[in-house]
Amino acid sequence: MTDAPEITALLANGWVMDADGSGISKTYQFRNFVEAFGWMTRAAIIAEKMNHHPEWRNVYRTVEVRLTSHDTGGLSGRDQKLAEKMDAL
Amino acid sequence: MTDAPEITALLANGWVMDADGSGISKTYQFRNFVEAFGWMTRAAIIAEKMNHHPEWRNVYRTVEVRLTSHDTGGLSGRDQKLAEKMDAL
Amino acid sequence: MTDAPEITALLANGWVMDADGSGISKTYQFRNFVEAFGWMTRAAIIAEKMNHHPEWRNVYRTVEVRLTSHDTGGLSGRDQKLAEKMDAL
Amino acid sequence: MTDAPEITALLANGWVMDADGSGISKTYQFRNFVEAFGWMTRAAIIAEKMNHHPEWRNVYRTVEVRLTSHDTGGLSGRDQKLAEKMDAL
Repeated sequence: MTDAPEITALLANGWVMDADGSGISKTYQFRNFVEAFGWMTRAAIIAEKMNHHPEWRNVYRTVEVRLTSHDTGGLSGRDQKLAEKMDAL
Repeated sequence: MTDAPEITALLANGWVMDADGSGISKTYQFRNFVEAFGWMTRAAIIAEKMNHHPEWRNVYRTVEVRLTSHDTGGLSGRDQKLAEKMDAL
Repeated sequence: MTDAPEITALLANGWVMDADGSGISKTYQFRNFVEAFGWMTRAAIIAEKMNHHPEWRNVYRTVEVRLTSHDTGGLSGRDQKLAEKMDAL
Repeated sequence: MTDAPEITALLANGWVMDADGSGISKTYQFRNFVEAFGWMTRAAIIAEKMNHHPEWRNVYRTVEVRLTSHDTGGLSGRDQKLAEKMDAL
């Protein structure tokens, strides 16, 4: 699905594709830790609701997110959907 | 401290004073539950950091907050400060 | 559904039925605010996943929860299920 | 401070020292994502209160934490204290 228009839109929005196409990543920067964690809380609620969870790393006001579909071993429509929801928060 | 200019500014910003002046209240409305709880998480972190906690009630996308200083039995500068921080989130 | 065995089990577990049977309530007490809010976060994720949200109020280390089904105007199986999940956290 | 008895206690409790002694790391495993994120929320509140934030990574029910003191360029008493608080949650 790497050529899908939805993925193209994500790439234009700061997401980067893994070299092997197996996942997409983005680094979000916030004003401070409180804003970063508030965003993570909203994203966590959405992720659990989708039964689709990110790989993510937080250091102070930075959150690095990687999305992949472990069950399919690569990118899926659920990664795209969660990415869009994260961007919309 | 009910005549302090800081309180006047809060009242102009949607906060309502209790009839007996012992606390201030405000109702926040959000887009949905996820946004409401994300805001509560940020406010909770700030409140704990200040060692000053709100009385608050959440129903779906609405959060009603009341601030009072239990130790002084009325409004204090900490209520004003937490109110300002909540408004700034 | 007020006579259902599931509701009986909840009542034995600290839940109280409204006088008119339209909802059930319980007050949870925690060690401190951090524990209270950590519990609320887990409950919030579960609630959003169920598309069924509590009416709840937090003051420091106390959380008062009321569950009702606004769409049916009274108790429903979703209240029972959310109550059980909250107790299991 | 790598020989301090407090650090020895942490190492006995699952924390691992970086090869160069600049930080300590631990991997926490939870029952599921909801439990993992509930723990992170409590840890986040404590971290912000201490003005000392972890480097941490979450994948589903696993949370990897690394603690270091960026300002001193190595381990400090604040890392030890935050580690102890995280273990006590």
